[in-house]
Amino acid sequence: MRDFKIAPSILSADFARLGQEVDDVLASGADIVHFDVMDNHYVPNLTIGPMVCEALRKHGVTAPIDAHLMVKPVDDLIRQFIDAGATYITFHPEASDHIDRSLQLIRDGGCQAGLVFNPATPLHYLDYVMDKLDMVLLMSVNPGFGGQSFIPGTLDKLREARQRIDASGRDIRLEIDGGVKVDNIAEIARAGADTFVAGSAVFKARSNDDPHHYDSVMQAFRDELANT
Amino acid sequence: MRDFKIAPSILSADFARLGQEVDDVLASGADIVHFDVMDNHYVPNLTIGPMVCEALRKHGVTAPIDAHLMVKPVDDLIRQFIDAGATYITFHPEASDHIDRSLQLIRDGGCQAGLVFNPATPLHYLDYVMDKLDMVLLMSVNPGFGGQSFIPGTLDKLREARQRIDASGRDIRLEIDGGVKVDNIAEIARAGADTFVAGSAVFKARSNDDPHHYDSVMQAFRDELANT
Amino acid sequence: MRDFKIAPSILSADFARLGQEVDDVLASGADIVHFDVMDNHYVPNLTIGPMVCEALRKHGVTAPIDAHLMVKPVDDLIRQFIDAGATYITFHPEASDHIDRSLQLIRDGGCQAGLVFNPATPLHYLDYVMDKLDMVLLMSVNPGFGGQSFIPGTLDKLREARQRIDASGRDIRLEIDGGVKVDNIAEIARAGADTFVAGSAVFKARSNDDPHHYDSVMQAFRDELANT
Amino acid sequence: MRDFKIAPSILSADFARLGQEVDDVLASGADIVHFDVMDNHYVPNLTIGPMVCEALRKHGVTAPIDAHLMVKPVDDLIRQFIDAGATYITFHPEASDHIDRSLQLIRDGGCQAGLVFNPATPLHYLDYVMDKLDMVLLMSVNPGFGGQSFIPGTLDKLREARQRIDASGRDIRLEIDGGVKVDNIAEIARAGADTFVAGSAVFKARSNDDPHHYDSVMQAFRDELANT
Amino acid sequence: MRDFKIAPSILSADFARLGQEVDDVLASGADIVHFDVMDNHYVPNLTIGPMVCEALRKHGVTAPIDAHLMVKPVDDLIRQFIDAGATYITFHPEASDHIDRSLQLIRDGGCQAGLVFNPATPLHYLDYVMDKLDMVLLMSVNPGFGGQSFIPGTLDKLREARQRIDASGRDIRLEIDGGVKVDNIAEIARAGADTFVAGSAVFKARSNDDPHHYDSVMQAFRDELANT
Amino acid sequence: MRDFKIAPSILSADFARLGQEVDDVLASGADIVHFDVMDNHYVPNLTIGPMVCEALRKHGVTAPIDAHLMVKPVDDLIRQFIDAGATYITFHPEASDHIDRSLQLIRDGGCQAGLVFNPATPLHYLDYVMDKLDMVLLMSVNPGFGGQSFIPGTLDKLREARQRIDASGRDIRLEIDGGVKVDNIAEIARAGADTFVAGSAVFKARSNDDPHHYDSVMQAFRDELANT
Repeated sequence: MRDFKIAPSILSADFARLGQEVDDVLASGADIVHFDVMDNHYVPNLTIGPMVCEALRKHGVTAPIDAHLMVKPVDDLIRQFIDAGATYITFHPEASDHIDRSLQLIRDGGCQAGLVFNPATPLHYLDYVMDKLDMVLLMSVNPGFGGQSFIPGTLDKLREARQRIDASGRDIRLEIDGGVKVDNIAEIARAGADTFVAGSAVFKARSNDDPHHYDSVMQAFRDELANT
Repeated sequence: MRDFKIAPSILSADFARLGQEVDDVLASGADIVHFDVMDNHYVPNLTIGPMVCEALRKHGVTAPIDAHLMVKPVDDLIRQFIDAGATYITFHPEASDHIDRSLQLIRDGGCQAGLVFNPATPLHYLDYVMDKLDMVLLMSVNPGFGGQSFIPGTLDKLREARQRIDASGRDIRLEIDGGVKVDNIAEIARAGADTFVAGSAVFKARSNDDPHHYDSVMQAFRDELANT
Repeated sequence: MRDFKIAPSILSADFARLGQEVDDVLASGADIVHFDVMDNHYVPNLTIGPMVCEALRKHGVTAPIDAHLMVKPVDDLIRQFIDAGATYITFHPEASDHIDRSLQLIRDGGCQAGLVFNPATPLHYLDYVMDKLDMVLLMSVNPGFGGQSFIPGTLDKLREARQRIDASGRDIRLEIDGGVKVDNIAEIARAGADTFVAGSAVFKARSNDDPHHYDSVMQAFRDELANT
Repeated sequence: MRDFKIAPSILSADFARLGQEVDDVLASGADIVHFDVMDNHYVPNLTIGPMVCEALRKHGVTAPIDAHLMVKPVDDLIRQFIDAGATYITFHPEASDHIDRSLQLIRDGGCQAGLVFNPATPLHYLDYVMDKLDMVLLMSVNPGFGGQSFIPGTLDKLREARQRIDASGRDIRLEIDGGVKVDNIAEIARAGADTFVAGSAVFKARSNDDPHHYDSVMQAFRDELANT
Repeated sequence: MRDFKIAPSILSADFARLGQEVDDVLASGADIVHFDVMDNHYVPNLTIGPMVCEALRKHGVTAPIDAHLMVKPVDDLIRQFIDAGATYITFHPEASDHIDRSLQLIRDGGCQAGLVFNPATPLHYLDYVMDKLDMVLLMSVNPGFGGQSFIPGTLDKLREARQRIDASGRDIRLEIDGGVKVDNIAEIARAGADTFVAGSAVFKARSNDDPHHYDSVMQAFRDELANT
Repeated sequence: MRDFKIAPSILSADFARLGQEVDDVLASGADIVHFDVMDNHYVPNLTIGPMVCEALRKHGVTAPIDAHLMVKPVDDLIRQFIDAGATYITFHPEASDHIDRSLQLIRDGGCQAGLVFNPATPLHYLDYVMDKLDMVLLMSVNPGFGGQSFIPGTLDKLREARQRIDASGRDIRLEIDGGVKVDNIAEIARAGADTFVAGSAVFKARSNDDPHHYDSVMQAFRDELANT
């Protein structure tokens, strides 16, 4: 069994009390804080930037923060998220004219670097950068648009990405983002993913009966993963 | 004496507990919640978007929210901030190809419309839109860059803007943003401003001895304004 | 009385039989064919380009064609409309980095040059180019958006533009575009306009009882203008 | 023998009488109306937009209209062409940041979706979207530039595309556009194309002796296709 | 008599031996090295960048270097020209979203700051920045295009700019660029300019009989200026 | 043994005496003058444009000039470098919307055409253009950024590119640019390169004891290549 990690996306949390939400979800068993950055240019939405990331660090969050940059261009925000305390920084290959350089920038800043693939983006952007990657993120919905469900074709794409990663012999996480729920996480894991972003599936399942409000849903995810 | 309003900029608040910060500052006597939106294109920073505005409304904030869009282009985010519950929406004339149309869009959405002037931007953008404005915002620092102090020339510009507003006979607020502090707010008010954005001057003055943490600083502002 | 010209905008004509429509409206008394070019960048719509202009010339249209470029940038399309047989070519000052140069380009191509002012655009773009202008076009609606009516403030702006033109002593037409109808054309003319774009007011008034289908509406415009 | 379709491009028709031209070419045996949309940004030309498409529908055209968007970005015009009555809507993968999303937008609007490949564009953009495609269009000239002839290398590319389509088991048309003439259509068909755009080859062959003016040239195409 | 300065533009010098050309023209009596930077975006040409400026300094040039940035955006190149040893750095107000900030950046780097006005650009960009300017440059041709002559209307514009500068009581140079020749420099000086860019008028007048090759032409300029 | 060519990049030469530098390095045995063009948009630097290329030709340089365009878009500068006397013109596939067209433009201008691959850019851009290429240039550093060393993964990429070229049976040079030095040129040659760009490795090795200042370093490169 792979070392599975669950990464709740705080885009579905309550921004009025974000520190508490993050504390709760981590106490409930989440591994990584997924942080969706949109600039209203690469995607039609504007969310949260480096100041919010920095505020979480000041609030005391020590878990890995996984900043997914849905922005174009990327280099300036890479620098800002390094300073803001991000752990992972991932970006879309279409959003950088100098992909190799942007990946180096992330690692030179002491962070872990990743590339993100839109549903239709081919995987050959991986051809010459496997040695500079710590994470590959496959989108299973189109980023920046609401109300979508998991695109089934992503399962095959996961299998291909898994094969490329295994063939490289490198320690690269394979993350999936979009429409991940309790009832499909096992299938997604079997296709090769080891890191799972979930937004509304986590935060909409908040329960006041749980000690940390998200214990039940996190446990449900864990139970499913245990069966893969 | 004009009807002075103080609008703390939440960019200097603690994003980990934004709801509480806003509750506190309003309870301490603030009139308006100033909300700085940056897209990393019009200015070199990315801050917070409509989801955060919406979260404040859901949290229970009923005070006016004053969304200052430092973004380009503006029309999509205008629509999103209307939906997110903004009261005022202001934008920079250089950031819209169709200024009259963008102003109409704001008012058609039930919000109050404003134009923002960078330190070097001439005031003639006001020539043909006075009947579509509820607010004129003069920047007294360059937006999106940190660590600046009040540009003195803005006082003369305030006097000119005040004259234009008074000549129009219309009910248009004259807001100032950048480097406003307790020791210069009276002079700024005398130059014609009636609405005052203050960021670090408010939130860096947080006091645990105050019942709502910002009572002292808000009172200091009020005292200064009372003398104008 | 000024030398009034009426310029029906073919954007409201039937594109399936554009040659006949243009023939009809000219036979009904129109003076100028107004040709609205939109590129889906400067305005949120894409209409018709130089090929359509050229087709009208090949079809036999000899009346002036007045190409209003709602595009950004402008220089390449200026060259193409010169070749396509345009008579007037006008563009928006915000859409060219080199306004003087673009105006020269039009005249060097043997066409008449004009600047177009959006409702909120100040008139000072006229300060240093009066000697290079054959036309000033004031928009009385926001270009590229549908369903708008005449913005009343344009009347004052027309008076200012008229004053500038008269002061220059030059032969420059003052055109108005947006919401012009039979019941307001006289007032608009009195404010200083001498050239009137009308779209749906003309083409929606098509009458099969008229010999050239638009005789009645054109006469109604003329009657109103005769009273100014 | 495949179900061959001929799609005359109305860019070569007479825009002054477009309705009649389209009626004629359809009566002469054409299957599809090919509609070339250029925005002067993705290609250096501006042609015709959704209003012209809508006019053809109002004129009574019921044949499929195949809107080829040579524009960037694509989503707004996709929406407009859905409303304007297009049947197929195709776009270039380089022109959309969110290809999967744009394809879905077309199908959600009740239209058929396609991707277009410039002569040098690799086919791997097909890797993860075969289930969302109704058409693959290969350009055999560079779009938006005049006076080019069929690029011979496209034949091999057609064979590869045909293989991918057949392997998918899906009902996807394989269209070719650029330099298609009576004397090469058979060879192109044998390489795998089933839908043929022809512009000047059709409209420059107009004959007043033909009942519908294009009967002879359409028959010549058909005869060639019958031999493949 | 004003303190006139002549600033030969090295764009007309021989780039194969630029150091020697600059040495010669300075030895012949030039005051300032005018350095035209074009990026093929703000103007349709690409010329020379900071490395060439730095090379001149390393070569031993100690005269003021006046870098005229015809680029968009400007801030990154401002930083680079500060490092490369420029003395003056000027830019076009249309090319910066944050004019006041860009001017400050230049002065903070120890350089002298200026704004450049295209022939059609109104002077009101000066309204709120006179205290941040060391130079105002009026273009008397359209920058980036070849083969133009002095635009006569610039003389009136010079008079207005001179009036603004004198009214400010500040020490701001008024520079003119475009079509300056021996036979019009006196008239231009009388209109208010004190700094004169000349390109081909200097470098095309190279004489092997002159000790430093440009002595005669520089003297001719000086003689004309002496008469104003 | 392949026909190896060494192409010193003049970006590392002394711009104050560029003609002499180029004469020297050619007299020392260099084969090609490598000319790096940056526009501060595709890469974060602005270097030298067509005027400098033309100056070298006027100075008497007859050796091939290899213009590497790190600019976006590319077509206008392609035309300008054809006129300026370039021999090779190469560009990045990401920088042109119409790669096939841009390649044709170069050859139609009588120049040799090439594509350049950034370190992370996949090679499939070669799939449909091998018949239009005279050169393939692999970047072994990220273009436009200073102080980088040879990226080791480029060796494998060279082997793949070599295989594609050999399989095509065409006469296409395989050039490498970035971090090439005396101590790695042999290994790079063995991986398949036949044309070697070297900048500081050449010009920083200038020796006043050498008859043409670069004889020793050029000989050192040649010696290494002789052993492959």
